[in-house]
Order: sequence, then structure tokens, then C-alpha cells
Amino acid sequence: MSYTKELGIKAKNAEPIIAGASTKLKNDALSAISKALTENAQLIIAENAKDLQAAKENNMSQAMQDRLKLDETRIAGMAKGVDELIALNDPIGQVIDGFERPNGLRITKKRVPLGVIGIIFESRPNVTVDAAALCLKAGNAVILKGGKEAINSNICLGKIMRDALEKCGLPADIIQVVDNTSRETTNELMKLNGYVDVLIPRGSARLIQAVVQNATVPVIETGAGNCHVYVDDSADIDMAVDITDNAKTQRPSVCNAIESLLVHKDIAEKFLPAIAERFKAHNVKIYGCDKTIDILGDTVEKATEIEYATEFNDYIIAVKVVDSIDEAIAHIRKYSTRHSECIVTKSLDSAHKFQKEVDAAAVYVNASTRFTDGGEFGYGAEIGISTQKLHARGPMGLAELTTVKYLIDGNGQIR
Amino acid sequence: MSYTKELGIKAKNAEPIIAGASTKLKNDALSAISKALTENAQLIIAENAKDLQAAKENNMSQAMQDRLKLDETRIAGMAKGVDELIALNDPIGQVIDGFERPNGLRITKKRVPLGVIGIIFESRPNVTVDAAALCLKAGNAVILKGGKEAINSNICLGKIMRDALEKCGLPADIIQVVDNTSRETTNELMKLNGYVDVLIPRGSARLIQAVVQNATVPVIETGAGNCHVYVDDSADIDMAVDITDNAKTQRPSVCNAIESLLVHKDIAEKFLPAIAERFKAHNVKIYGCDKTIDILGDTVEKATEIEYATEFNDYIIAVKVVDSIDEAIAHIRKYSTRHSECIVTKSLDSAHKFQKEVDAAAVYVNASTRFTDGGEFGYGAEIGISTQKLHARGPMGLAELTTVKYLIDGNGQIR
Repeated sequence: MSYTKELGIKAKNAEPIIAGASTKLKNDALSAISKALTENAQLIIAENAKDLQAAKENNMSQAMQDRLKLDETRIAGMAKGVDELIALNDPIGQVIDGFERPNGLRITKKRVPLGVIGIIFESRPNVTVDAAALCLKAGNAVILKGGKEAINSNICLGKIMRDALEKCGLPADIIQVVDNTSRETTNELMKLNGYVDVLIPRGSARLIQAVVQNATVPVIETGAGNCHVYVDDSADIDMAVDITDNAKTQRPSVCNAIESLLVHKDIAEKFLPAIAERFKAHNVKIYGCDKTIDILGDTVEKATEIEYATEFNDYIIAVKVVDSIDEAIAHIRKYSTRHSECIVTKSLDSAHKFQKEVDAAAVYVNASTRFTDGGEFGYGAEIGISTQKLHARGPMGLAELTTVKYLIDGNGQIR
Repeated sequence: MSYTKELGIKAKNAEPIIAGASTKLKNDALSAISKALTENAQLIIAENAKDLQAAKENNMSQAMQDRLKLDETRIAGMAKGVDELIALNDPIGQVIDGFERPNGLRITKKRVPLGVIGIIFESRPNVTVDAAALCLKAGNAVILKGGKEAINSNICLGKIMRDALEKCGLPADIIQVVDNTSRETTNELMKLNGYVDVLIPRGSARLIQAVVQNATVPVIETGAGNCHVYVDDSADIDMAVDITDNAKTQRPSVCNAIESLLVHKDIAEKFLPAIAERFKAHNVKIYGCDKTIDILGDTVEKATEIEYATEFNDYIIAVKVVDSIDEAIAHIRKYSTRHSECIVTKSLDSAHKFQKEVDAAAVYVNASTRFTDGGEFGYGAEIGISTQKLHARGPMGLAELTTVKYLIDGNGQIR
């Protein structure tokens, strides 16, 4: 039997135990994991050092090395993240709907765990702990396949969490970390129907597309964000500058940062110089349409289809002056990845029209797109931001790691 | 450009119009479709006759020919089904959740259409109308790919519905019926990411697995039902006989009929002869374990792993005597397709244990599994019964043909 199928069988065996565990037992396990992370900080740092050494030898960029690094502060942060899940309401057992049928059947729709969740991710090793803890709280078993850059850190974190589970009387196999870096394991995991109930890829667009294209297990697609701010003709200029600047420059590497700016022609001559002035602080590179170049001058480079379609994840923006809100909505419809979109406006009609007609997980009126986040929404934690329409859309918290079950009670009803 | 991609583009162009349509307009369109079906009954029957002629020439079984046949009564039934959707509440626009964050952001979670739904089906042409009408009511565009046996009927039904849409001022491309029977179109439809938001296969297990294995578009898996009745030691014998007989023989070809019967050893000697007597009316063929054979005699054939794993869809049942409810639950865990499972019992403990530990879309206490159905649940109509855990589980009504959108209203909030 393949190593991957063995992982699947072990996960399926552990599944009913964590699915049936009480909220108290799950919270005790989270507490034990948090404590174990703190107590084993030096061990984690030592294993992480091996990954960092390899990263240096492979000439990994300084930014990537920084993302990979675990120190006492970051380990304390991970432990705190686990502790915070304890306070969140347990979604399992929640009655979502219930009714009685004319024939006397009583039907109750209840939240139950998804079962076995597979996470395929790269980059930061803290995902190992975040994802495992969220899956655990929602009563699921989890199989974690991280990137090769963090393999020593991931295995060490997995072992610490598994030991903590056993100390609480739970099977270690509720949390399994793949201990190799082979592509074959990833490919097998993507086709482990019957053992894995859902796959959640986290990382680059390339990784996510590889999973979407190859998995036969149901996938929740996360992450890609070609987001826009549209500045309506009635916008408050100062508010529009603040929101656009924040959405672009506060953290340009993330999926809820904007990549393009659309400006109504009647406000462009006032607004564009103001935002260009603000962008100077971060040396934001501007691509623009002809009208943008007319207004801002030829430091602006000509934008093509390519710039409007690109997720820069950097201090770069593509600007277009539009004749109407309809043109803005049509542009968004063409280029958006349906993640987060924003209008800045004083017009009630424009606000309603934009929220009704723009198809995206999150549609903002007069607020930065940077708020599309489980923490900011008050969900306490998130396992990713879904950009597909099935099952989950937008920030995914604990409820999105569950499914439902119908319980039907009768007294002999037949058809 | 391929024919299939053209279908996708046309659907995406029609999508925002039906997504934004008022409930009244959608209901008017349903009413127009229902009327057009009735008025064009003779045309439908004539086109259906071509399919029936081809079926005869290809020696299709009489039962299959019967499923294919449309007559005035069946057409009236289809029209009535469409009319009944008018009375159902429109799920679109429903506010599912809403809250205000400490920073003043007001967040509203609203139901919106999924977008473009692809249905791949075989057998009965009435699926063409049922599925199109459900998708329409939930604000979606739909692409229907039926089987080659019903191609003339399907094209005719599609044309009638499209004409009715245009008479209401809606684009015909809200409903598209694939007008060829090529496998290539099906394969392309399964990979039409960006144009099709979800695929729902309906038909044989073979068809459904082909879609699950090959699609890169998200799929909702429907249908497979290896369902069980477990007769607990405390069961009322008469009730257990009625429920088991109904669940097996009332309509054995459907997914919510049972395939296996589990009986507690302490009740087996009383219950098994009673149910065997009842089964005689339908000549139900019984496979059984050694204890079953001991009790019922050697008209019972020995059951193997194969019988316990088979969805017979026929007057055949596999029986096993178990030592305990735990053995019954373990057996179900091993063989069930997680569709519908039933316990007959007088014990509150057994009822609770069974409903908690059995993992299935619908778990019954003292009622026939045959109730797992959109109509029986009061959902008015269904597009299928989901046997996967993502997005939808159990009977899928209008709500399952929707997704959500977060609307966020601020007054200049930035991070």
C-alpha cells in the first residue's frame, strides 16, 4: 500500500473520534498544543535552523528567508493563535434548521465535521499549526503537506502537536504531517477520494491552479486577488485617497490588496494628482490609460490588457479613467478574480448599483478592500479566503470547515 | 473557438441579466415556459417519437423505453412541476447574516446566484425541464447536456423554453441545450473553468464517476445510495417489517431505497421470518450471513463482501445478523455511501447513538429511508441528492443553487 493511502486510512480511523469529541476535550487539546509549542520553542528553533541553512545554500531571497524563520516571538504568536481558538464557539452540533412535516416526521439539520481535510501549502511553517488547530476545533482530522523549504520545521511542529493530542487521550493521527517532499505524495493526495473529503491549497497561484487542475477530491480554491477600487464622480476626494492608498500600499503582497484603480472622468483631474502625490511615499509605479497619462504626465507608463489582468502583489498599480459606473462595472467583470471590490461614492444609487451588479466575495462601499479577512470580519481565525462559489465564499472560519447532516425522527412513517 | 466555449461565453453573457432579474420576472418566465410546454405538446410528442424509434432500433430495454417516453400526461406533469416553482420563495437576496464591527463597518451576507450551472445527465428528458426551471428560479444560467437517447426530445424542449424566455424579454441563452451527442463536448464542458461555476451530473454511477474523475470545474456529486436499515433488539417488530419492506420494495430502482438489512441477534429469530414472509410478495432475492441462513433456511444465498457493497437497485437484499449496535454502525461505516441510513428501535440510547455516530446525509429513527427527497422534505423540488460533503448534502433545493456575497458598508475605514 502506498504511503499516501496509509495516511488516508489513519486519518479515516481517527476521524470518528475527533468528530465525536466534546467541546471541552477539543479545547483541552488546543490548550495542550499551545503549551507544548511554548515549552519546545528551542527544539523548533533548532529544526527551523536546518531549513534556514538549506535556504541560504539554495540562495533563497531574503524576503522568503524571513517568512521561513521561526523565533521565540513567532512561536509565541503561533501558541497565542491556538489559544484564541479555545474561546470561539464550537460550530459542531449547531442546529441550522428544523421543522415538522405534515406526516409527523421531525427533521433537524445539524452541523457536523467535514471529515478529513487535506491542506497543501508552501512557504510559512506557521500554516502547519494554524490549519491543524482550526481543523481540530471543527472536529476534523487533517493531513498537512507543506513545501520542501520548511520540511524540518513542519515535521517538528507536527510531532509536538501529535504528542500533545496523545497526552489528552486523543489519537495522534488526527493531525498528520507528510514527512517527505515528493511530488508523488502530493499527486496521490489530490486523488485520495474516499479518504480525503476536501482539499484546501494555500500558497501561490501556481500551486492552487495545479491542485484545481489535477485533484479529483473536491477542492476549495483560495487566494487569487485582482481587486479594484472605483472612485465614483461623487466621491469624497480625501476619503478616496485614503482608501486607495491603504488598499494598495498597506501590505501590497496580500490577496486583498488592490491591483487596479478606476476613476470616473468627472473627478479624475482632481483625484489623480492627489493619489499620485500620496503614492510617492512608497514609490508606487503607475501604469495608466491615455487620459491618466494626460493628467499625470509621462512618468506614467501606458497600461495594456496585461497590466489590467495582472496581480502585481507589489507597489505597482494600473489606472483607468472611465466614462461611467457602468464602464467601471464592465471592466471589473472582465478582469476581477471576484475576491474584493470597492466603490468610493456619496451617491446612494451608485452604492446600491455597485453592490448589486459587481460579482465578488466582498463588495465594499467606502472602505478599504484590506478588511476581507477572517480576523477583521470577527471570525477569529481563517483557513483562507475562498474565491470560488461552492461551499464557501470569502473568509473561511470554523463554520466553513463543517458540513450538515439531516436527523429525521419518525414513529413508523413509510411512503 | 470551440462550440463548447461559445456555449460558455453565451451563458456568461446571459448570467448577469438573470442574476439581476426580479422575482416577478422570473416567475413570469416560469409561467410562460409552463404554458409553452402545454401548447406544444404535440410537437414534443412528435420529436420524442424519433427518439423512441431509434431506441427500438437499438433494442433498448422496455423499461428504458418507458422512461424515455413523453405523452400528454407526462408533459402536463412537467408543466405542473414548473408552475409549482412559482409559489416557492425566491432564495436570491435573502440576508443570511449581518453584523456591525467595532470599527463601524456594517457587514451583510446575502444569497446570490451561483452563476452558470452545467448539468450532465442521461435517461429521462423531463430532467431538461426540471433542471432548467430550478436553475432559472435561483437566478442562474444553465447549460444542459443530455444523453444521446433523448437528443431530439431535449433539443425540442430547449427550443420551447428559449422561445418562452424571449417572449418575456429575457435572453434565450439563460437556458442552453447542447445540440450534439459528442463525447468531446462533454469533456470540454467538464473543463470549462471560468465559464461554468459548477457541474451537477445526474444519472448512473458510471456517469457521475466519469465527471468526478475528469472535471476541473467544481462538481456536486449526486446519487449513489448503498443504504441500510438496522433493526435494533428493542425494535417494534411490526414497525420494523413495514419500514424495511417499504424501504426495499416501494421503488427499488431509486437511490434512497435500501440495499442491506442489519438485524440485532436478539431479535433476529422473530424478525427475519416476518420480513421474509413480507418480501415474498415481491419475490425479493435474499443474500444472508450464516446466521440468516440458519434462521431462514437455504433459499437464502450466502452473502459475501460483494453483496454488502452492491447497490442492487432491484428486488434483492443483503442481510446480516449483528451482535450489537456497534457492529451495525461499523458495518454501515464500511459499506455505506453516506446517503440515507435508518435504525428501528424503541431505545432512546440506541436512537441517539445511531444518529450521532452514523455519518450520512440523512439518518432516520423509525421511518423509511424513502423520505430523502426534496419534495418529501418540503423543499418543493430538487435538482438531485448530494452525497458529498461540500456545499450541499442531502436533497438540493433552490438554496443549494445559490452562493453568498458579503456587502460591506463603511464611511472611510482603512487598516
